[in-house]
Amino acid sequence: MGEFDLIKRFFTRPTPRAVLGVGDDCALLQARAGMQLAISSDMLVSERHFFADVDPRTLGHKALAVNLSDLAACGATPLAFTLALALPQADPAWLEPFSQGLLALADQHGCELVGGDTTRGPLNICITVFGEVPAGQALLRHSAQVGDDIYVSGQLGQASWALQLLLLQRQGRLPSAAETQLAQIRARLESPSPRIALGLALRGVASAAADISDGLLGDLGHILERSGVGASVDADAVLALLPGAQTLPAADALRHVLAGGDDYELVFTAPAHRQAHVLQAAKQAATPVQRIGRIEALSGLRLHNRQGQLLQPTLHSFDHFAPAPQEAKP
Amino acid sequence: MGEFDLIKRFFTRPTPRAVLGVGDDCALLQARAGMQLAISSDMLVSERHFFADVDPRTLGHKALAVNLSDLAACGATPLAFTLALALPQADPAWLEPFSQGLLALADQHGCELVGGDTTRGPLNICITVFGEVPAGQALLRHSAQVGDDIYVSGQLGQASWALQLLLLQRQGRLPSAAETQLAQIRARLESPSPRIALGLALRGVASAAADISDGLLGDLGHILERSGVGASVDADAVLALLPGAQTLPAADALRHVLAGGDDYELVFTAPAHRQAHVLQAAKQAATPVQRIGRIEALSGLRLHNRQGQLLQPTLHSFDHFAPAPQEAKP
Repeated sequence: MGEFDLIKRFFTRPTPRAVLGVGDDCALLQARAGMQLAISSDMLVSERHFFADVDPRTLGHKALAVNLSDLAACGATPLAFTLALALPQADPAWLEPFSQGLLALADQHGCELVGGDTTRGPLNICITVFGEVPAGQALLRHSAQVGDDIYVSGQLGQASWALQLLLLQRQGRLPSAAETQLAQIRARLESPSPRIALGLALRGVASAAADISDGLLGDLGHILERSGVGASVDADAVLALLPGAQTLPAADALRHVLAGGDDYELVFTAPAHRQAHVLQAAKQAATPVQRIGRIEALSGLRLHNRQGQLLQPTLHSFDHFAPAPQEAKP
Repeated sequence: MGEFDLIKRFFTRPTPRAVLGVGDDCALLQARAGMQLAISSDMLVSERHFFADVDPRTLGHKALAVNLSDLAACGATPLAFTLALALPQADPAWLEPFSQGLLALADQHGCELVGGDTTRGPLNICITVFGEVPAGQALLRHSAQVGDDIYVSGQLGQASWALQLLLLQRQGRLPSAAETQLAQIRARLESPSPRIALGLALRGVASAAADISDGLLGDLGHILERSGVGASVDADAVLALLPGAQTLPAADALRHVLAGGDDYELVFTAPAHRQAHVLQAAKQAATPVQRIGRIEALSGLRLHNRQGQLLQPTLHSFDHFAPAPQEAKP
């Protein structure tokens, strides 16, 4: 199969909203009056972000989901995306489920595939996604205020836990008792659900937001750093976000929820007087949210338990170029 | 150096035109009223699109140039781009010249780096570029008309010729007499100049356009196919676009100009009665253009010499997934 047949067969679809889709030198989008375009780009590398033998359908889903999650964090409505794909070979048995997983999620969010590139090379998936948001209403990282509450959507840590179990399974060391657990949480790693509806509902409610891709500590840390503030976070509230945490060693559970990454939940802040609005937004988006702490003037992030004891986690969020010991993250 | 230090040091710059640049979940662009957004994405893979030991400064230049060339083909004004980068390691001695080459070309075209991604992995550069064009004025591939003249900008075939000489040099088989030739044309392969000014000048003048990235035959072929027309092309006019062609075996010269690729010139069509406008646009853009043939109703591309003899080139444009024999293209 040639390059252009491949594009035609698997990646060319009607684009009723875009002015021009796949097949020309450029795609064309028409922005609506008063709207800003939100843009995000993510690159997924084989054996770093995913196992090479992962189900291509879930990989297609995840490749777009991690980008949509960035739009969610900004409160943007998905519009369109481009897909650049390096493939070791043009294998229809891989491309068909990959494109199906990708396009099913795209359809779910009305996000049109408008262009991209295909080439031969080590498996690499680079998606750039476009959304729209009314001018001035995007949720950003730099605007958390002292006294704001800090919230997290959904659950945390299951993706990291699933990865740990998958690594054991690949080494033939997964206890049979843990197989059910893996089956229950594996989808959290492989098929995350971007929180688009919550992001939209939080426009005008949240003061700052980010998606949790590298771990809560790191991504909340970006909000703190850019806002020039600090935070106090309730470790017990955070641990409650991981169902089954009590079956894990405490240090493992804390690591999964604070620094595991791959959660694709939202962490956001809102003034205390808007708590009812936050809960209303969560209800509207059918997405649970949990208050986990408060923004403080003192810089840095302080983690404490319900007894008020300060914990000293030596955890770091994921960094692709950190010296060690994160080599194992696929 | 960590991931975020790397981004800060090499890839974070002021973005006076964008609403929001590097550092949040999304970048934000504000489209101007009446404008459409032109989008293109290209992925460059080490040892396929470039030699791994190529000067990183020219690589940075080329990675953006090939994307800007797509904007040129649409007649769009560059606005911004995202950069997703997979790197084997975070090496400042490589990243510094790479970012300098990239950003120097970006500055030249007022194209702001607004976001992206960095990860560890086999060297891979994926740029998505954004331009703007007045609604309805983009140059497209599907609108060539029977009777239109066909033009090519600049020169063709030097990039392909340079690649052939470079491959000989790497094998230690480059004749010393050819070293001067390589030195003269190497920049055409490694530092192409996107024809932005010409693309802008051709709005309202050209009936269809494409950039020549995979070879003239293939890229003109896209125009013909999408426009539902054929073409007659003057082989001698095309050969005249390659200075020094007479020093090459005729088949080699024809292969370089017709199917070499990596030219990043524009091929475009215009009604015969607009010839003066085409020449005026070329003058305005300080870019030479050459008429090479005519659009005809009969589908297919017919190549003939000045004696009217029909040639039968068995050349194909570059296809990353064609079975053979193009494996050698870096």
